[in-house]
Amino acid sequence: MIDNPYYTPEFHGDYDVVSIGRLDLEEGGSIPDCHLAFATFGTLNDAKDNAILIPTWFSGTHQIWRDVYIGPDHALNPEEYFIVVVDQIGSGLSTSPHNAAGPNADIAMSRFPKVRIGDDVVAQERLLRKHFGIQTLALVVGGSMGAQQTYEWAVRFPNKVLRAAMIAGTAQNTPHDFLFTKSLIEAITSDPGYAEGEYKSNTDVVAGLTRHAGIWAVMGFSTEFWKQEVWRALEFDSKEAFLAGFLEPYFTAMDPNDLLAQAWKWQRGDVARHTGGDLVAALGRITAKTFVMPISEDMFFPVRDAEAEAKHIPNSELRVIDDILGHLALFGVAPTYMQQIDQNLRELMAIPA
Amino acid sequence: MIDNPYYTPEFHGDYDVVSIGRLDLEEGGSIPDCHLAFATFGTLNDAKDNAILIPTWFSGTHQIWRDVYIGPDHALNPEEYFIVVVDQIGSGLSTSPHNAAGPNADIAMSRFPKVRIGDDVVAQERLLRKHFGIQTLALVVGGSMGAQQTYEWAVRFPNKVLRAAMIAGTAQNTPHDFLFTKSLIEAITSDPGYAEGEYKSNTDVVAGLTRHAGIWAVMGFSTEFWKQEVWRALEFDSKEAFLAGFLEPYFTAMDPNDLLAQAWKWQRGDVARHTGGDLVAALGRITAKTFVMPISEDMFFPVRDAEAEAKHIPNSELRVIDDILGHLALFGVAPTYMQQIDQNLRELMAIPA
Repeated sequence: MIDNPYYTPEFHGDYDVVSIGRLDLEEGGSIPDCHLAFATFGTLNDAKDNAILIPTWFSGTHQIWRDVYIGPDHALNPEEYFIVVVDQIGSGLSTSPHNAAGPNADIAMSRFPKVRIGDDVVAQERLLRKHFGIQTLALVVGGSMGAQQTYEWAVRFPNKVLRAAMIAGTAQNTPHDFLFTKSLIEAITSDPGYAEGEYKSNTDVVAGLTRHAGIWAVMGFSTEFWKQEVWRALEFDSKEAFLAGFLEPYFTAMDPNDLLAQAWKWQRGDVARHTGGDLVAALGRITAKTFVMPISEDMFFPVRDAEAEAKHIPNSELRVIDDILGHLALFGVAPTYMQQIDQNLRELMAIPA
Repeated sequence: MIDNPYYTPEFHGDYDVVSIGRLDLEEGGSIPDCHLAFATFGTLNDAKDNAILIPTWFSGTHQIWRDVYIGPDHALNPEEYFIVVVDQIGSGLSTSPHNAAGPNADIAMSRFPKVRIGDDVVAQERLLRKHFGIQTLALVVGGSMGAQQTYEWAVRFPNKVLRAAMIAGTAQNTPHDFLFTKSLIEAITSDPGYAEGEYKSNTDVVAGLTRHAGIWAVMGFSTEFWKQEVWRALEFDSKEAFLAGFLEPYFTAMDPNDLLAQAWKWQRGDVARHTGGDLVAALGRITAKTFVMPISEDMFFPVRDAEAEAKHIPNSELRVIDDILGHLALFGVAPTYMQQIDQNLRELMAIPA
């Protein structure tokens, strides 16, 4: 266990942490006492039919959803819905390599087991059912790794997911995306300070985390983001200042093993595991009203990959989000981004389920 | 000086090495005795008006041009033209960090000075004039960093360049491309074996060179190259085998300092240095008949960047090369690639200059 002040309410606002007990894992082994961190917004109605689940993306938590996506002016309106944002396993807030202690002490740091997207979804289903008594979800929506989890929900629990919105993510991770993530992993593990996962502080790995941020700079934004100097909208006056003032501190605050646990999971997102490798059959199981929402300039979840999958989802529509930022449009910086998200989610919620 | 068997005729076939004397550099300092390696094909006619110059790209040499682009069945036909492929400074064949010796001993390895695209072009012009008596070029054609040098030629020596073809490269390097190259540089320099550039053998840096290859896998090919498993055409049976059998050995054979010298140069390619930063004015100086030839799936020299520049070149046409491989289509693997290159170059050569 490592003390990292980033993974606290000071940085992430209020959230709850609940044990869902022992979680046996698809790859073998288990998390003896799996804790899930989550934040809720709004009130669950008596019929328990107004619940929305949001799983989180790589390196992100409920915080970005609270600050950017959720509010009375948004489609994700807490005055109408009961919204649960669950921080993924390995996020640093739920059970993760850096915070494994007590009953989880044996899986701390380099001994953390491999966790798959499916493990997260099983854990989330248990949380919703046992802690809140929620049996069906009016909507599951997520971006990037959150989209991977949304696909997993829609394929694994089709009867529980009435609507699904996958932003900037795919049902089956692509080989290119696997290689991109591999480069992220290697940027961290190649740092001598990483010490095979047994560093004493994330600051020991600052060089690797900084290189990791540098690769995000190349793939996370679009070529045009840099050319148009869109970072000026964030009040930086050079791309170097933007890296040093935003992208690098964002990642260097985080725990290396936590990021690696998420990255390994991301690399292997694949709903076809339910159907012996048959992706079309897996997507055919989805009964949710589904909006597939890639971002136009995404360098590693490109529109055509999302479109190829959407074709095989029975009740789906492709809704491309136009944003020059690329994948990290997810941060909601462009003034036109949330308008598109809200418009699409409002239309999706208006479809009778 | 390091003995590296990769940089020999055994791997690169026949070539000549000629001293052009002292080369003073734009960034200050000089190469005391600059040697340029080059290979020639065909015969210079008496009028000396059938010469074609080809500058090389990052990590590449005359070898790929000889094997793929030049021949009696190609537009670059040695029965018609006198073709000179000049290996760039830092290529490992011309004066480079790893081979600096004798009068260049003081600039070996980590002491190698910063060399710019403009320095290469000045050196090449001197070679052509003094060694061959060539005053004008029927064509300058290059890919990637070779395209950067071609732009530099066309802007710096407009009266000497009758035609120019820039494949998969830009006149002014983009900020995204700078960041991509930065990630390549950091993959190498972060290897403890790099030893601040004073390693004893390139094999000391194999981990860094392998990570460098891994980032090329992400950016050098397109997402669709990986999805369609185009590497099967090269007789590999997994993407891992393709990396281990092709991309990794390709780069790990090379010298780290040589690659870094080229990468630094690549990052700063910019013809607007001739016009106080005014790119439009610089491109307006070009008098050559020019074909701007980006590759459709290029991840870091995207078509729109090439198109934006082509608009400002007086006698230019945009000729997009359609290839699923992305930037590394330059290797000429796709059966449809060379047809497009040849067709365009034949049309360009048919335009009276």
